[in-house]
Amino acid sequence: MSTFSKVVICGVGLIGGSCARALRRAGAVKTLTGLGRSAASLERARALGVIDEAATDWAQALDGADLVLLAAPVGATDALVTELAQHLPPHTVVTDAGSTKSDVAAVFAARLSPEQRARVVPAHPIAGAEKSGVEAASASLFDGRRVVLTPLPESSPEAIERVTRAFALCGAHVSSMSPKAHDETFAAVSHLPHLLAFALVDEFASRANASELFRYAGSGFRDFTRIASSHPEMWRDIALANRGNLLEELDRYSAALSRLRSLLEAQDATALEALFQHAKDARSAWLDTLAAG
Amino acid sequence: MSTFSKVVICGVGLIGGSCARALRRAGAVKTLTGLGRSAASLERARALGVIDEAATDWAQALDGADLVLLAAPVGATDALVTELAQHLPPHTVVTDAGSTKSDVAAVFAARLSPEQRARVVPAHPIAGAEKSGVEAASASLFDGRRVVLTPLPESSPEAIERVTRAFALCGAHVSSMSPKAHDETFAAVSHLPHLLAFALVDEFASRANASELFRYAGSGFRDFTRIASSHPEMWRDIALANRGNLLEELDRYSAALSRLRSLLEAQDATALEALFQHAKDARSAWLDTLAAG
Repeated sequence: MSTFSKVVICGVGLIGGSCARALRRAGAVKTLTGLGRSAASLERARALGVIDEAATDWAQALDGADLVLLAAPVGATDALVTELAQHLPPHTVVTDAGSTKSDVAAVFAARLSPEQRARVVPAHPIAGAEKSGVEAASASLFDGRRVVLTPLPESSPEAIERVTRAFALCGAHVSSMSPKAHDETFAAVSHLPHLLAFALVDEFASRANASELFRYAGSGFRDFTRIASSHPEMWRDIALANRGNLLEELDRYSAALSRLRSLLEAQDATALEALFQHAKDARSAWLDTLAAG
Repeated sequence: MSTFSKVVICGVGLIGGSCARALRRAGAVKTLTGLGRSAASLERARALGVIDEAATDWAQALDGADLVLLAAPVGATDALVTELAQHLPPHTVVTDAGSTKSDVAAVFAARLSPEQRARVVPAHPIAGAEKSGVEAASASLFDGRRVVLTPLPESSPEAIERVTRAFALCGAHVSSMSPKAHDETFAAVSHLPHLLAFALVDEFASRANASELFRYAGSGFRDFTRIASSHPEMWRDIALANRGNLLEELDRYSAALSRLRSLLEAQDATALEALFQHAKDARSAWLDTLAAG
């Protein structure tokens, strides 16, 4: 007997498709329904065995659904939630996969009734990948990765339990924090580094001697800038959605760089070495906690 | 018949030891002599088969040497070159493995005669590794990597040819530039990213909620900060030695960050996406050139 009789994936790309594949791997769902604007890409997802059926009609798709995962680009969230408000059956639980959470919480607050919001539990699956599209979807994308739930004030314990169970069945470690704490934390550990990497590569690429510079860039540069190969439109939306926190993080980092610059200008060998050592030790301790699982 | 009858490695750590192992793999040298201050670590290098004999006496070590590689920490360069000046035989060629080159060129200019400098060809093997010590030395460390020669004004064609041959036998791609161009280029593509990574990890680790932040740091953060696990003392020396160029790079990068901050504050979605796309495209083109070899 499957845990879920029907799960609806709204936006069957890398994240939605991987979630579908992982739930299927777990034998956790009877019917996987894909919902989306493009009939052609839904048909591709069906042909690949990612979903069982394609739907373009909300009422039909949601009929009998235990769970809906909104996994379309965040720019579409408002339109999707507006549709959802008109068609959400009384026993269907909703989650999403957006990288920022305060903005998503605001959309749910604006578009859904308090009764509907009781069945909504926003989530952020931390599974970055440079790839995109349903072809890249993998049943193991979430294995051992974190999924952070950011419940709304109205989210019911039953809804939280159902969403937790779904992501746990996908192989993820599930934890919770408030949308505000989520956006502050990820502004620092994820959004800031992405902006720093994009800024560096853009700046180098804008120079007259760019090809000469890139010729001598090595493996350190390659890893440092890996995240500058991330999806430009997605990161534009994340940066704008988390603008306030990200501006603060940019200011903190600029101040830190400024202090480092002063140490270098003053040739303060002791302080420079101490700063480098502090960073190395902190990173090493962090890697130890990762290895310890 | 070996290409070299005797090669002297001064400082048998990761770089010196890997060079020794690579020359041995190539069957290119009859005798590998290690020179260094610590008899115990030279003995370890000999026991590991990295060198054939350990020397602590310069005159004895250099007697009959075709090539000397200075691979001790850069802080020792001045003292080593002072010794070298007193003992350099007339047919021995000298190279080094320092990550900055203008400072090294200045030491050679100060300590050696013009005739001696004709036989000196400074080099920078681009083979970063978080490991250090002779135990980590590997015959394949330089395979497919770049070695940049920065000849002195006096370096003779014969000396350049000999050093080129040695690094090519180690498996590296050898090219040349001036010490000034080298230090400008590497300030941008290597030294700046190291400082940016060290600064970020140091700043996070200094916060009250550091452990909470690190808990949510993912694979993007891990790769972005890999170079913050580099050797603190070595990077202190590199930063100080290349201070002028690095201060300029920090200023350029701070200005770029400032522009990015303005776009974000103004919510300029079009310009943000264009910047991210420009970076992604440039990195993608660079990866293509790497793949093409």
